[in-house]
Amino acid sequence: MRLASWSWGGREHVGTISADGREATPLAVGDASRGALPLIQALARGEPLPQPSGTRLPVDVVTLRAPLPRPLRSLFCVGRNYRAHAQELAGTVFRETMPTSDPWPIVFGKLGECVIGPFQTVRMPSPTTTIQVDYESELAVVIGRGGRDIPRSRAMDHVFGYTIVNDVTARDVQMRHQQWDLGKSFDDFCPMGPWIVTADELDGRATRVRGWVNGEPRQDGLTKDMIFDIPTLIETCSRGITLHPGDVIATGTPAGVGMGFNPPRWLKSGDLVRIEIDGIGVIENRFE
Amino acid sequence: MRLASWSWGGREHVGTISADGREATPLAVGDASRGALPLIQALARGEPLPQPSGTRLPVDVVTLRAPLPRPLRSLFCVGRNYRAHAQELAGTVFRETMPTSDPWPIVFGKLGECVIGPFQTVRMPSPTTTIQVDYESELAVVIGRGGRDIPRSRAMDHVFGYTIVNDVTARDVQMRHQQWDLGKSFDDFCPMGPWIVTADELDGRATRVRGWVNGEPRQDGLTKDMIFDIPTLIETCSRGITLHPGDVIATGTPAGVGMGFNPPRWLKSGDLVRIEIDGIGVIENRFE
Repeated sequence: MRLASWSWGGREHVGTISADGREATPLAVGDASRGALPLIQALARGEPLPQPSGTRLPVDVVTLRAPLPRPLRSLFCVGRNYRAHAQELAGTVFRETMPTSDPWPIVFGKLGECVIGPFQTVRMPSPTTTIQVDYESELAVVIGRGGRDIPRSRAMDHVFGYTIVNDVTARDVQMRHQQWDLGKSFDDFCPMGPWIVTADELDGRATRVRGWVNGEPRQDGLTKDMIFDIPTLIETCSRGITLHPGDVIATGTPAGVGMGFNPPRWLKSGDLVRIEIDGIGVIENRFE
Repeated sequence: MRLASWSWGGREHVGTISADGREATPLAVGDASRGALPLIQALARGEPLPQPSGTRLPVDVVTLRAPLPRPLRSLFCVGRNYRAHAQELAGTVFRETMPTSDPWPIVFGKLGECVIGPFQTVRMPSPTTTIQVDYESELAVVIGRGGRDIPRSRAMDHVFGYTIVNDVTARDVQMRHQQWDLGKSFDDFCPMGPWIVTADELDGRATRVRGWVNGEPRQDGLTKDMIFDIPTLIETCSRGITLHPGDVIATGTPAGVGMGFNPPRWLKSGDLVRIEIDGIGVIENRFE
């Protein structure tokens, strides 16, 4: 199943998307402002999916919103989780904080309020705030059943599904505050979508994440090459912390970010960033 | 004004506390589950405070909850913001990340879901999760009017009031993930209260923060000794990020944390941590 949220006819809707990605069927949901979040919460409580309601529409005519336009809370985000990406960072200003090996995942927070739609424009902060805006193509895990101290061996039972996020980052701000949250949380810095594909239709451990800037291929990674796999990330984030239905874990980005080039290639006004994940779809955001 | 949230008669209430801290007057609020948050949001919209409603009670007979039992989102938390505390950390495992000077504040996130009441027990995670639980006595700023790119010169206009938080921290977890959010966000790791004192009654830039463990004085700092003052912190957190009414900025802790001792003095089951801030009051939490 693919769960999405969209605007059409001056209203917000939540519903399902057909397997070919072409048709949107709205579901009978009272308040669609939080997108798929209340559905995920209801399903986690054992309630059924609401009935279809309203006109079935071509996806082309609706405006897709993020499936979780305002997530429950900050996203759990993972740093330096693909070997080739860790390698490229070793040649940057991050070299000083590079351990010889990472025995534990790096996990930081990204404010949920910076989520925007899968095709929405990212308004970059003024140059007095940042001049080093970068993209990070990522697979995001959406938690279904909540829990605390979830062992790796049972972690996949807690996955509701997957979506795409662009973990947009202001590198200068990320570095200067030492902790990364601020440089990751500027308004608009989390394009998400185009929908959530449920775990029965996709295994996030075996897919491919690709990113382009203005049509030029930049990132191409296999999720099986994560340093810390999805079960380990769920175990890590739930250790001593209760995870809730609708929580999001962004699993880190493959090699090929702008900062990895020499000289770095920061995003500039007018750039178009496209991310595709096999089995999910595409998001594409203009930066201005 | 002092805004508080409490349980009494099997229900949750929001209301005001008398200047002497002895009497609680409930206000006519539909849903008290989020404590003072909807009041702060309504006041920011220019709406009046709801009318008093129900029985005025001695504070002694009610159970105070956190004034924001579930904040809007993660708290913005500030690291290493008192000179004497920065000094004590230079002798710890943090020495490797100590810059010669901090030109920018260190800001990280603490999940709002770990907030507990001002006198509630902190259930420490199991020893397999952490064996280095530490306290941090802190003044927390509650944002009233929201905004983005708020300049230092107008920042105080955005302060709704102040409360106390204990930014409880698992030092081993904080260090091992490099980014601090996880080690700061375990369930129960944010005692808060006893109420919010509005900015017309207290200037957070000129008060005193003290902490005790089992009656032994540990922390004693003046907020005027912050490295980055409150206006600078608001300017920092709002740069490129829209702050909302009810947002919380925890301003960092004075010297005297357990990790600053040699050998370190971690919290153990049965310990009682008391924090007092002049002009606000006291929170006191048992750890078990």
